[in-house]
Amino acid sequence: MQNGYGLMAGGADEDIELAMPVFDALRPEGDRADSFVHVGGVGAGHYAKMVHNGIEYGLMQAYAEGYELLAAKDIIKDLPGTFRAWQKGTVVRSWLLDLMVKALDEDPGLASIGDYVEDSGEGRWTVEEAIANAIPAPAITAALFARFSSREDNSPAMKMVSALRNQFGGHATRPAN
Amino acid sequence: MQNGYGLMAGGADEDIELAMPVFDALRPEGDRADSFVHVGGVGAGHYAKMVHNGIEYGLMQAYAEGYELLAAKDIIKDLPGTFRAWQKGTVVRSWLLDLMVKALDEDPGLASIGDYVEDSGEGRWTVEEAIANAIPAPAITAALFARFSSREDNSPAMKMVSALRNQFGGHATRPAN
Amino acid sequence: MQNGYGLMAGGADEDIELAMPVFDALRPEGDRADSFVHVGGVGAGHYAKMVHNGIEYGLMQAYAEGYELLAAKDIIKDLPGTFRAWQKGTVVRSWLLDLMVKALDEDPGLASIGDYVEDSGEGRWTVEEAIANAIPAPAITAALFARFSSREDNSPAMKMVSALRNQFGGHATRPAN
Amino acid sequence: MQNGYGLMAGGADEDIELAMPVFDALRPEGDRADSFVHVGGVGAGHYAKMVHNGIEYGLMQAYAEGYELLAAKDIIKDLPGTFRAWQKGTVVRSWLLDLMVKALDEDPGLASIGDYVEDSGEGRWTVEEAIANAIPAPAITAALFARFSSREDNSPAMKMVSALRNQFGGHATRPAN
Repeated sequence: MQNGYGLMAGGADEDIELAMPVFDALRPEGDRADSFVHVGGVGAGHYAKMVHNGIEYGLMQAYAEGYELLAAKDIIKDLPGTFRAWQKGTVVRSWLLDLMVKALDEDPGLASIGDYVEDSGEGRWTVEEAIANAIPAPAITAALFARFSSREDNSPAMKMVSALRNQFGGHATRPAN
Repeated sequence: MQNGYGLMAGGADEDIELAMPVFDALRPEGDRADSFVHVGGVGAGHYAKMVHNGIEYGLMQAYAEGYELLAAKDIIKDLPGTFRAWQKGTVVRSWLLDLMVKALDEDPGLASIGDYVEDSGEGRWTVEEAIANAIPAPAITAALFARFSSREDNSPAMKMVSALRNQFGGHATRPAN
Repeated sequence: MQNGYGLMAGGADEDIELAMPVFDALRPEGDRADSFVHVGGVGAGHYAKMVHNGIEYGLMQAYAEGYELLAAKDIIKDLPGTFRAWQKGTVVRSWLLDLMVKALDEDPGLASIGDYVEDSGEGRWTVEEAIANAIPAPAITAALFARFSSREDNSPAMKMVSALRNQFGGHATRPAN
Repeated sequence: MQNGYGLMAGGADEDIELAMPVFDALRPEGDRADSFVHVGGVGAGHYAKMVHNGIEYGLMQAYAEGYELLAAKDIIKDLPGTFRAWQKGTVVRSWLLDLMVKALDEDPGLASIGDYVEDSGEGRWTVEEAIANAIPAPAITAALFARFSSREDNSPAMKMVSALRNQFGGHATRPAN
């Protein structure tokens, strides 16, 4: 199997041992420590997987912001080639970077893809855990909110900002679309 | 004059004194200290006005986020009345709150107003100064970025996030609109 | 009473009417609509008060960022006077601004006050509601996270960023304090 | 050479061709397209490198936030092992993740490392470019501001928030340290 899973399990030692054949079957071949971890007690595996996905939100957002910055500049003539050049020897090399290269190979300007992004819950849980533990998580939260924004056709908040600017400064509003 | 200006001037004492009749004519009646300040040296007045406007960005964004939170809940039956009740005796009472009440009086659901919000530069300058002085300014910056987002029909960054989710998870993308 | 409460109540009409004498006793004198609102059904009053406090977090953070920007510049000679000049006739005039003026009157450089800021829960609830309703609330969230950060003596996240910079770039770390 | 550079060059074709032997000597062995890109016109190489580093800020911050979330939970018994398990087969696998594993191998709790993080300028430039191009970049900016915060012993902004809470709510402030 080329891409297995990174497996994170929680529970008592004896229960983990009992289930180990299942985990062994799912993870990539090679050293067990490579893709499996007994994280801790019951629930620890889910927690670790949640954090994994929260990090994933932040990583994708960071790459995506960089992509937009490059895409906005006329001076950049070879954007896909730039990401390709980063795949070896740079600090930002990663599997997600490889996927960006692949996505741009398939559709150089992402012309066929809308900017509406779902979230599947783990980002929310990560931010909720950050709040519950009084841990600042601004990058991961920014990624989550960017997805929320992407799904709003007509932001009530921004309508209000526009209304306020009109009230105090006479700044023109745009008609609702 | 009911609403004058808050005047912030920078320069040498003698130059400020020379221009004082102009400032006196512009500010609201009453004590000079009410609406005029000799902030400091040349440039200090502009700097203070820039910060004033940066704060204004943050305040409007905070109110607007609260407005959206209230507008989203069916349980809230009297949203304009809620803001009206806040105008006296609460921590958030302000002129901007008064303007929110006025805006909702004129158009209760802001149905006529689009969610596209310009920026007139001072927010950008404020964040640039924050960066130049290594000062974290997350709330004001959030307000600025929310305006940038409001003006993007088709966010390249969010297209990329959608493309990445499709690459690794087979999550469906939406077609570009 | 100079400062009463802004009262937000939820419940059935008949129950609100029954409790009205209590609300009347608590709110500032004047028109009932000034400081009282029957927001909606059961729970709506608490929800509105929560949003009020969430907004409060954002407003305070915006003012505080502006304060820091002004405090950092040598060119600004009269910072308290600047806030005082904003109290009439500017867009950012508010009760919180009045309190900033008062706080700086009492302690011009806030020399006696630490930078450790508690939160009393409503900010967290507001952000949790934002998440539950898929509403971006970046300014209010920034305010909440700034408080969390203010209470961390030794941020594990920033230790990790420092460790990573050392790993890939040989950038010096600082010893733990 | 195990780790070369990812090289991004800007300029006219003939100038790039002239300098190509230098680039060839610096990049890792293998296909030229692997680690070299002629990005575009003069300045494009620097711009791309700046964006690379901006992304790097965001990636590190996302990993670091996840690290802190894991480190805060007693239920997590094997934090280094968790990151190690992510190195193959997960969405967040990357060179930076490998470095996190290495850093935790060397100092499991990062006990020897302070939480003071410098910035070397590229993060600032990235955010300035975001602002100049009206592009929202909240995750990268969050990473930059987190570094600024990490270097403040005594945040004037948070002192003001504390002072305001004391003014309106009588909330106790902490004495300055």
